[in-house]
Amino acid sequence: MAWPTRVRMFEVGPRDGLQNEKQEVSPAVKAELVDRLVAAGIGTVEAASFVSPKWVPQMAGSAEVMAAIHRVPGARYTALTPNMRGFEAAREAGVDEVAVFAAASEGFSRKNINCSVAESLEMFRPVVEAAKAAGLPVRGYVSCVLGCPFDGDVPPGDVARVAAALYGMGCYEVSLGDTIGVGTPARARAMLEAVAGDIPVEKIGVHYHDTYGQALANILASLEFGIATIDSSVAGLGGCPYAPGATGNVATEDVVYMLDGLGIETGIDLEALVRTAWWISDRLGRPPVSRVARAMKARLDQA
Amino acid sequence: MAWPTRVRMFEVGPRDGLQNEKQEVSPAVKAELVDRLVAAGIGTVEAASFVSPKWVPQMAGSAEVMAAIHRVPGARYTALTPNMRGFEAAREAGVDEVAVFAAASEGFSRKNINCSVAESLEMFRPVVEAAKAAGLPVRGYVSCVLGCPFDGDVPPGDVARVAAALYGMGCYEVSLGDTIGVGTPARARAMLEAVAGDIPVEKIGVHYHDTYGQALANILASLEFGIATIDSSVAGLGGCPYAPGATGNVATEDVVYMLDGLGIETGIDLEALVRTAWWISDRLGRPPVSRVARAMKARLDQA
Repeated sequence: MAWPTRVRMFEVGPRDGLQNEKQEVSPAVKAELVDRLVAAGIGTVEAASFVSPKWVPQMAGSAEVMAAIHRVPGARYTALTPNMRGFEAAREAGVDEVAVFAAASEGFSRKNINCSVAESLEMFRPVVEAAKAAGLPVRGYVSCVLGCPFDGDVPPGDVARVAAALYGMGCYEVSLGDTIGVGTPARARAMLEAVAGDIPVEKIGVHYHDTYGQALANILASLEFGIATIDSSVAGLGGCPYAPGATGNVATEDVVYMLDGLGIETGIDLEALVRTAWWISDRLGRPPVSRVARAMKARLDQA
Repeated sequence: MAWPTRVRMFEVGPRDGLQNEKQEVSPAVKAELVDRLVAAGIGTVEAASFVSPKWVPQMAGSAEVMAAIHRVPGARYTALTPNMRGFEAAREAGVDEVAVFAAASEGFSRKNINCSVAESLEMFRPVVEAAKAAGLPVRGYVSCVLGCPFDGDVPPGDVARVAAALYGMGCYEVSLGDTIGVGTPARARAMLEAVAGDIPVEKIGVHYHDTYGQALANILASLEFGIATIDSSVAGLGGCPYAPGATGNVATEDVVYMLDGLGIETGIDLEALVRTAWWISDRLGRPPVSRVARAMKARLDQA
């Protein structure tokens, strides 16, 4: 067992997480969540999404969120920008980094962004060009890397092809998402091997969902493969739109607890993170799905 | 990554699990749970506990449970028997296997069974002798192998010493329990290395709790170490008495899902197992804590 000495945690709770919660949260609360996460030591936060408000109504206030954040030097505030219109709005709002998102399966691409995988890549190309011209790094997401709710199994070669296209057009990093959480460690490993044939391992991030409880096991297998960037969502915010009542994004606290135990540095204060998980969960009126947040509550309440 | 081709799942839900649930369940329901688990392909079930009913009131009906079970040839029905009185009662009730339980920490031993670790081992010796004379296998449990709620850290050497004592007195297998679920994969690995200095790896079982969400990652590390016996609890029955509202035993469904994904044989039908998880959870009036049980519900409801 060998793994990186330091891992970069990429926090997606304020955007990916809250977007998939039933209950709406105000831009002010979103901005405060971002501030609390950065105060807990999170270095990169996906704070907003500049997609058409018609598609994703919760994101209408993205510029408001960006304006309300108390920016901390060194922290990185990112946003989704699927097209040029979104990119321009994100740039105006002052984001540090943008992201484009493709699917590894045709079925998901059509249902999620209403075009084929190839068409989505063409739509992203000018965004990546414009971002480069503006000096903004672009992250690429690939969803459904271990299974698709519409197409079922997804061959590792399909994931590698989409990831290589995003990296090839200029994304500085590609985040590989198990959108429906069906993967297990051997499948995750095989998928990573395929992608790492085209992209350096240090340019790969992993984005696991805990829908079937497999996220930490998949992360352990990924660390052993050399992956050092992990996406997660505070309190496990997000749920799973494809399995009502089930868990979505892996909880940041659960990942950080494991990394602490493995002696892997993250720069994150676990107790401050758990307090933040309870803070946002209280606003949603339900406990965090994070095992660590629940287990540490009694101890923190006493302190 | 290499792991065993077959794993033996040791089901502890009907005893360890239900004993730690707030709500009482009748002997008839316990027996039906055992029957349903065996029908789903579970080969070994901890069905009862013959300790003083004064200590653990829920277990007063253990003989009733054993009598109500519809025994299936080949399946193994086990019980806890901390002393000679318990052993005689268990034998009379027709169990196939008995078990004794020690702690790796003095603090837990005193609080849990009211004697020192050394005293507990002396109490178990005649039980193991009597079981051998009666032709019944004896399993040894060690609790607090990765941390103690009273003493804190537990050195791997202490775990190894207690495990070796149990194996030395005649236990056919020793199950190592992370009773408060605080362990992470590197700690688990170090502890297993210490124990495997004294006991063959094929005589070691692991018993992880999911209190901090680490159980599957610890199981993956244990499989890579060569461990092929895993304790778990259907629906994650049990909770954690040391962290109110937190998760206890790892859910059998979550483990089996991972093992299926790794191509490791268990003989268990995951869908039948998930149905059983919901069946017992409905009787307790709350959903299973198992991620897999929740995620698969929608699919099973449609079928």
